[in-house]
Amino acid sequence: MALRVAVAGASGYAGGEILRLLTSHPEVEIGTVTAHSSAGRTLGEAHPQAHSLADRVLEETTAENLSGHDVVFLALPHGQSASLAAELAPDTLVIDCGADFRLRDPAAWRRFYGSAHAGTWPYGLPELPGARDELEGATRIAVPGCFPTAVTLALFPAYTHRLVEPEAVVVAASGTSGAGRALRPHLLGAEVMGSMTPYGVGGGHRHTPELTQNLSLAAGEHVTVSFTPTLAPMPRGILATCSARLRPGTAGGSEEEVRAVYEAVYADEPFVQVLPPGRWPSTASVLGSNTALLQVAVDPGARRLICVSAIDNLTKGTAGGAVQCMNVALGLPERLGLPTDGVAP
Amino acid sequence: MALRVAVAGASGYAGGEILRLLTSHPEVEIGTVTAHSSAGRTLGEAHPQAHSLADRVLEETTAENLSGHDVVFLALPHGQSASLAAELAPDTLVIDCGADFRLRDPAAWRRFYGSAHAGTWPYGLPELPGARDELEGATRIAVPGCFPTAVTLALFPAYTHRLVEPEAVVVAASGTSGAGRALRPHLLGAEVMGSMTPYGVGGGHRHTPELTQNLSLAAGEHVTVSFTPTLAPMPRGILATCSARLRPGTAGGSEEEVRAVYEAVYADEPFVQVLPPGRWPSTASVLGSNTALLQVAVDPGARRLICVSAIDNLTKGTAGGAVQCMNVALGLPERLGLPTDGVAP
Amino acid sequence: MALRVAVAGASGYAGGEILRLLTSHPEVEIGTVTAHSSAGRTLGEAHPQAHSLADRVLEETTAENLSGHDVVFLALPHGQSASLAAELAPDTLVIDCGADFRLRDPAAWRRFYGSAHAGTWPYGLPELPGARDELEGATRIAVPGCFPTAVTLALFPAYTHRLVEPEAVVVAASGTSGAGRALRPHLLGAEVMGSMTPYGVGGGHRHTPELTQNLSLAAGEHVTVSFTPTLAPMPRGILATCSARLRPGTAGGSEEEVRAVYEAVYADEPFVQVLPPGRWPSTASVLGSNTALLQVAVDPGARRLICVSAIDNLTKGTAGGAVQCMNVALGLPERLGLPTDGVAP
Amino acid sequence: MALRVAVAGASGYAGGEILRLLTSHPEVEIGTVTAHSSAGRTLGEAHPQAHSLADRVLEETTAENLSGHDVVFLALPHGQSASLAAELAPDTLVIDCGADFRLRDPAAWRRFYGSAHAGTWPYGLPELPGARDELEGATRIAVPGCFPTAVTLALFPAYTHRLVEPEAVVVAASGTSGAGRALRPHLLGAEVMGSMTPYGVGGGHRHTPELTQNLSLAAGEHVTVSFTPTLAPMPRGILATCSARLRPGTAGGSEEEVRAVYEAVYADEPFVQVLPPGRWPSTASVLGSNTALLQVAVDPGARRLICVSAIDNLTKGTAGGAVQCMNVALGLPERLGLPTDGVAP
Repeated sequence: MALRVAVAGASGYAGGEILRLLTSHPEVEIGTVTAHSSAGRTLGEAHPQAHSLADRVLEETTAENLSGHDVVFLALPHGQSASLAAELAPDTLVIDCGADFRLRDPAAWRRFYGSAHAGTWPYGLPELPGARDELEGATRIAVPGCFPTAVTLALFPAYTHRLVEPEAVVVAASGTSGAGRALRPHLLGAEVMGSMTPYGVGGGHRHTPELTQNLSLAAGEHVTVSFTPTLAPMPRGILATCSARLRPGTAGGSEEEVRAVYEAVYADEPFVQVLPPGRWPSTASVLGSNTALLQVAVDPGARRLICVSAIDNLTKGTAGGAVQCMNVALGLPERLGLPTDGVAP
Repeated sequence: MALRVAVAGASGYAGGEILRLLTSHPEVEIGTVTAHSSAGRTLGEAHPQAHSLADRVLEETTAENLSGHDVVFLALPHGQSASLAAELAPDTLVIDCGADFRLRDPAAWRRFYGSAHAGTWPYGLPELPGARDELEGATRIAVPGCFPTAVTLALFPAYTHRLVEPEAVVVAASGTSGAGRALRPHLLGAEVMGSMTPYGVGGGHRHTPELTQNLSLAAGEHVTVSFTPTLAPMPRGILATCSARLRPGTAGGSEEEVRAVYEAVYADEPFVQVLPPGRWPSTASVLGSNTALLQVAVDPGARRLICVSAIDNLTKGTAGGAVQCMNVALGLPERLGLPTDGVAP
Repeated sequence: MALRVAVAGASGYAGGEILRLLTSHPEVEIGTVTAHSSAGRTLGEAHPQAHSLADRVLEETTAENLSGHDVVFLALPHGQSASLAAELAPDTLVIDCGADFRLRDPAAWRRFYGSAHAGTWPYGLPELPGARDELEGATRIAVPGCFPTAVTLALFPAYTHRLVEPEAVVVAASGTSGAGRALRPHLLGAEVMGSMTPYGVGGGHRHTPELTQNLSLAAGEHVTVSFTPTLAPMPRGILATCSARLRPGTAGGSEEEVRAVYEAVYADEPFVQVLPPGRWPSTASVLGSNTALLQVAVDPGARRLICVSAIDNLTKGTAGGAVQCMNVALGLPERLGLPTDGVAP
Repeated sequence: MALRVAVAGASGYAGGEILRLLTSHPEVEIGTVTAHSSAGRTLGEAHPQAHSLADRVLEETTAENLSGHDVVFLALPHGQSASLAAELAPDTLVIDCGADFRLRDPAAWRRFYGSAHAGTWPYGLPELPGARDELEGATRIAVPGCFPTAVTLALFPAYTHRLVEPEAVVVAASGTSGAGRALRPHLLGAEVMGSMTPYGVGGGHRHTPELTQNLSLAAGEHVTVSFTPTLAPMPRGILATCSARLRPGTAGGSEEEVRAVYEAVYADEPFVQVLPPGRWPSTASVLGSNTALLQVAVDPGARRLICVSAIDNLTKGTAGGAVQCMNVALGLPERLGLPTDGVAP
């Protein structure tokens, strides 16, 4: 019998992508879809690409409308998930694509989000060591942010294997859908096409504490992350260039050794590909897919390990990661309903 | 038992898209994949987005390599399908994405392609009147060109219903994948980004005789088509703006009547959507999907019917149309393995 | 002594482009710059590319602030120029980039703009027959819309030389800056990149009556114009594909004859280039330049003349056209301060 | 009397941009333009945006054709400048946009370029300490690479003022014109639009030794540079995100102090703008301009100084830098003929 699945915040980009994936998920029946300012509109109006659901009407985002489902995806602005989740039945699987339940450190939450910390849910990145054990059977899951997904996959093996020093430098380009669907002047097409620009430089981006948390957990010590996100002239995709100094005297100092570590870590992962030598990830190669592409290099002059990862920010970076978590939590095959291959060119 | 399917010309853009669709087709097992100059390379090298087939090796395009399959897709340069098809078993379903077998008029073929006419196969646009009868059980199918798919869907109802005069004017923008993967200076990224430019103006584009053929068959009289293709700064997609003068005194002169005709013609079509009033097709809305979006308008001042259609040139315009034909020919559900919804934003 | 020039509406895209051109105009000193909601901000905030004027502060758009200049450019939303212009000194050269004074027919104005007609000023397209005589010494000039500039240059020679019938069909793609800087969901970068979509189909675009007016004046009879604008994934540029049926029995029926007419009409024009045979206009070739590129073809099958033109919508289509008019009105060399060559690739 | 200026390699992107700038330079008369495989073609064919020079014919690149000019710009593939320059008169100002004469270390040259080192010319980055003294009156100048221009401007003040440690990490995105005009599959428009991808990762890019050289000279000690270039979906522009650990106990540890250093260093520079706090560089803001935009931040958590710079790779990064050097060498006003403001949106 099909799972009944609701999506809250279905009018945004993340919500639309969740719907796209659920539509082709063989075990899912899409139930209530909700929105706030778009309530009353059809999905066809909100998502002109969602032809198969075009006539569905967006309801108001309330706990009442969302109740009575097996699974509820929350794709809401940060800070709005906690009160809603509290009203949903404890045995409903609630998967939050917002930031509310990702951070363990209440102080970090307050510093970056300015409100009281809601708590911490199991962290929905199944590729992390031990994560699947925690996610199986869980009824509350916090899906990682898009940048943390790309960066954590790129660097955690280097930290769990003690290949590098605890100072990471990350520069990551994101397509503009990563900034959401809110109307802001710098997101107008005429401004973004042909343009690259950084934002949140110097540690100010809200994904910084999540990156720090993930890499520190992997390293078993505090890792600093210098994180600079940039906005790139493309609708989707994240390309994260991550590096850290090699530990002196460590094994794993050669590119072959480093690649061997990464290949071993990801050998059985359905959605992470360490590319063969000589090929580098591109965002086009993962468009619409749940795959993360990785490649590593060692710079002998700078004595740094560099790992570049590419994901689709809306798929593996949000909606695909969320559906993957649903599959894991419910004991379904992890690949179910999730595209591996990208739409290219 | 799965169908064994081969793809010839698998290193090009059309071939890559056929593979993407076949990979998620539940009745298909991908057999031999062939190429010419890329023979010996892996699919991972040729199509960095094709993660699930990355290790498959491209063989040389020969009839021998292609034999022994239930279905063979040909995605070859124009003029190369005929000799190959002649060597394949008569009961193998051969689906040609090239132009070789699309035209009925040998003279038109010679004028636009400069070689001897190979013949005419059943024309693979299932939405045309009577087409499914011809395609069911067929073992040779000629898939339409990408522009003819977009334009024929936009205009044939106006001709079968005698709404307009036999002089069509079409301006259609295509993403640059429509120009193929050959290395040509004007297709370099630095040249195409930010740029629109026409080509084949004045009747010179090779899709012109195919358009003329399709619309003339629909009208039951000779239809002239003024066709101007333009190259647009996007990887995929066709937006075809098609118009013709309304017949004087005809029924169907109001926008509502015209829309009613289109809605009736496409009421049961799984892959054609006539949009509700006030919404217009966009290429982003059909990215990676087999859907054609249509909208109509009547210009009272110019006394013209305008129909705008949007398709993905590689999906509905080539590979998706080809898989749809395979489904029809083999009696499978027509939607099988074909995405309806687009990947957007 | 330098001309003192003010720009009203300097925070928009048109205003920014006027400033860019004036900055390198040798006879101009930039005086007051005004805005409405951006008043109080610096030009550096409004136009991050305007480094040479970054510290200038936008004042409120009032007649008082704009008085005391030799020239005032108005780059305001439609309908706001009339009252402002009435308060400026009669001998001040006022150049309006809005639509308020372009149309001769008050009924057409009311139908498309819904308010009382403000009047008609000399029409600022110097390339039209007789236009320079009217513009020299004028103190009020209405600059054409961006689409009308591209289309009128493409088709008026065919009408003044009676080459074609009075039914024009125009499909024109515009970069998204043509839609202005207002925040609208469909103009978000994530929506427009990779996407083409039409708007104002069926005669509804506000530039339709201006096109009809211009071509009818050229033809000496009423010309209908079927005009479909499309939004293209590029910041700037218009590519207009314009066609009309050749008059039966007319001279000018061959491509060579048509080209000869166009070459003769534009032989002495500094900003219109009829390309040599075999080359077609592209928007990239005119980026940031005041040049209009044209090419003609004759389709023997459809018996139509096709002319494709490319301009930069913000330069020749708005700000460059406006500065060109200023030069003509004041008796300055027409090319002064205006770039001929594009910024490409 | 005008300077007679020749351009060798005028058919490439750099050559085209040199011509665009020279065309509006008041002291320059464009003499011979040469090419190799495009010799015999017109500039209109090679550069469809170069309307003012469209009829000029490209001659073969030989010393004979280039002799008799006051200035010769070389925009040739790496390794071809030396033999040509040797044949030009010693008092001709030869400005090389290639790499041949940029590196001081013959071993570094051999490692990255594989041939014998041609020598070292005065380095054409006027903003470096002491550079103008060396460039004034010089007759041979080596213009920096596009990435080294962006990165050196971003980091040299931090090294000359001893703010940071000698380990720089640079991730820089470039528009695809930076890869030149050669036909390579990954540069096709369909491949690059919507895609970001790295290349030359791990120290392999040929600009790495030039970066190391420049920053080491500024620091007075060896600086390692971890440099990852990425290809971004835009025709032009470089956005360089550069960082290094703050020296412990150093003055300049706060963002205000760091900005004060940068503002002082660049206070009198006509082509470098340190942006006000809160604004960040974008490549769109420098399109077609010779301006470099910079902004700095201090990340207190990571204890790193981050400087992001944006330039147009073809203007300030190549052709504009070259013309700026010509002006300095010949004692002309440094800004002559060089646009400060960008073409945006």
